[in-house]
Amino acid sequence: MEIYSIKRKKNYFEIIDQTLLPTKEQYITIKDYKDMIKAIKKLRIRGAPAIGIAAVATAYLACEQFEKDKDYIKLMPKIITEIEQSRPTAVNLFFATQKLKTILKETPLLWKNKIHTLVDEFMSYEMQACENMAINAINIIPKEYSIFLTHCNTGSLATYGIGTALGVIRKISENNIRFRDNQAIHVYVDETRPLLQGSRLTMWELIKSKIDCTLITDNMAAKVISSKGIQAIITGADRIASNGDTANKIGTYNLSILAKHFKIPFYIVAPETTIDKNIKSGKEMIIEERNPNEIIKIKDQFIAPEESKTFNPAFDVTPNELITTIITDKKAYTKPFEFDI
Amino acid sequence: MEIYSIKRKKNYFEIIDQTLLPTKEQYITIKDYKDMIKAIKKLRIRGAPAIGIAAVATAYLACEQFEKDKDYIKLMPKIITEIEQSRPTAVNLFFATQKLKTILKETPLLWKNKIHTLVDEFMSYEMQACENMAINAINIIPKEYSIFLTHCNTGSLATYGIGTALGVIRKISENNIRFRDNQAIHVYVDETRPLLQGSRLTMWELIKSKIDCTLITDNMAAKVISSKGIQAIITGADRIASNGDTANKIGTYNLSILAKHFKIPFYIVAPETTIDKNIKSGKEMIIEERNPNEIIKIKDQFIAPEESKTFNPAFDVTPNELITTIITDKKAYTKPFEFDI
Repeated sequence: MEIYSIKRKKNYFEIIDQTLLPTKEQYITIKDYKDMIKAIKKLRIRGAPAIGIAAVATAYLACEQFEKDKDYIKLMPKIITEIEQSRPTAVNLFFATQKLKTILKETPLLWKNKIHTLVDEFMSYEMQACENMAINAINIIPKEYSIFLTHCNTGSLATYGIGTALGVIRKISENNIRFRDNQAIHVYVDETRPLLQGSRLTMWELIKSKIDCTLITDNMAAKVISSKGIQAIITGADRIASNGDTANKIGTYNLSILAKHFKIPFYIVAPETTIDKNIKSGKEMIIEERNPNEIIKIKDQFIAPEESKTFNPAFDVTPNELITTIITDKKAYTKPFEFDI
Repeated sequence: MEIYSIKRKKNYFEIIDQTLLPTKEQYITIKDYKDMIKAIKKLRIRGAPAIGIAAVATAYLACEQFEKDKDYIKLMPKIITEIEQSRPTAVNLFFATQKLKTILKETPLLWKNKIHTLVDEFMSYEMQACENMAINAINIIPKEYSIFLTHCNTGSLATYGIGTALGVIRKISENNIRFRDNQAIHVYVDETRPLLQGSRLTMWELIKSKIDCTLITDNMAAKVISSKGIQAIITGADRIASNGDTANKIGTYNLSILAKHFKIPFYIVAPETTIDKNIKSGKEMIIEERNPNEIIKIKDQFIAPEESKTFNPAFDVTPNELITTIITDKKAYTKPFEFDI
């Protein structure tokens, strides 16, 4: 693996500042726990699995800083609360702080070592999950498929490992197992407005990994599918309901309808932890609406009248009937989606 | 009408500089024919019908400038050639210069008056065509429809008059004939990447005309149709083949597929002159591919890796079977599309 969202260095961490990509590839050394919290808040590190690791890493840095401080025992729980408040919606963040709170119930002498081990566990768990998703995907995606369309960023930057949907593409490419008419794998990348995760992050990852790729604007998908021989659409997921309805980055629903129209498969790749068995269907999902400035401005320049009303949902929900297969680190689920309990 | 792409003022013209919209609403007085040619070249005035009028206006300005010049007779044909070379692909431009060349065959004493009359003719023709399209549309769009989705800019800025697709919306709104649950007309506007004609121009026109509108990114269409009660999608056209296949701004094809999926009508509004009876189907249309910089940069700032490969078709072709009705200034055509000869 050549791209890391976060990397452990002896007793500190290094992250790539995702807010500066693709124009600047800047790695930041983080030794102070406050800087890691700032990095999470400022989206220098993003993507649910990556944030989970960053949360545990933050606690580890705090141990390093304060283990000899007289207030160590009082300080640590406060820092866990600070971590918890860094991003309000990332499930992986709360999963991490739960684990950290359990550790804090033990004797303080063990905290640093236990949290050190927890960082390792999180990293190896996420890395293995990505590998398993890719292996499961390769087993079900027809061998002759080599031209894909993807959306948003689901690669190494969003996870710890090869990624989810992009991990599958990376694995196919690395194994060199996909050729069609002697043509190697080719990925068409939706730029993914408004925040441009496709053009800023996915293109950067693919070019860096020497995987052949072409950037398009989101509205070109029908033209590209009909004229460039796209064989499958492959995306990640943010939340999957018990019936298979899938919330993912805005624009995914559009693509699933195009896939149905053009009779090509629509694959979702996500870890088992994305499946939310507490909700029956997509109807129970509340979709976050974001700031109008994301649409009417680009880097402080207005591209629409300042007084424009906008509708800016961060995600949409693809109904289960439009999804061909949901591929997790455990297995590949087909319709009707009945997830293991 | 309150928005003019071009306006006659005694013996000169005034245009709005469309390259500065929406951040700056700047009107330019044009007295020198060379400045009008520059305005066409720099896209300060754009849209096929508006360009046609600008072409005739250029010739009129040249008459004003040179009618007392000893080289008047030699100068004018050269200027017509200059006009012809200002934009390579606008059909209306060549239609205009054909008419101008015919006038130049008459005695030079008549030129200025005849060209003056031609400006009037072009303006009143285009204005009437817009009116007629709107009237024909109102007759076939169900009375209870009040929530529309549109793409690109098809309003007063692109034409001379109320516009094509946007003209229909404007007419419906002006007449106050469309209400649903006491809710007045509402337009959802695709931003229309990469050149953002929706956010820059359509939003500006609609806000100025006090028509209720909401800006979305192109990839939000499925979410908006399914959650905001869109009743019809309505766009313009750049070229229509004999079988009804329609070339329009990239992204139109996507929308037509969504319309089919959600079982809502998909209307094309365009003047009769857009129908190209020389081609049988969309397969004969050559689609212009534009500069990668339109996708990887916004106002000189890179939003993707500089070395990104792109696919940047300016238009796509919507197959006739996905179009509900093609509404021209003459009539409304339904499937199978058989245009009058």
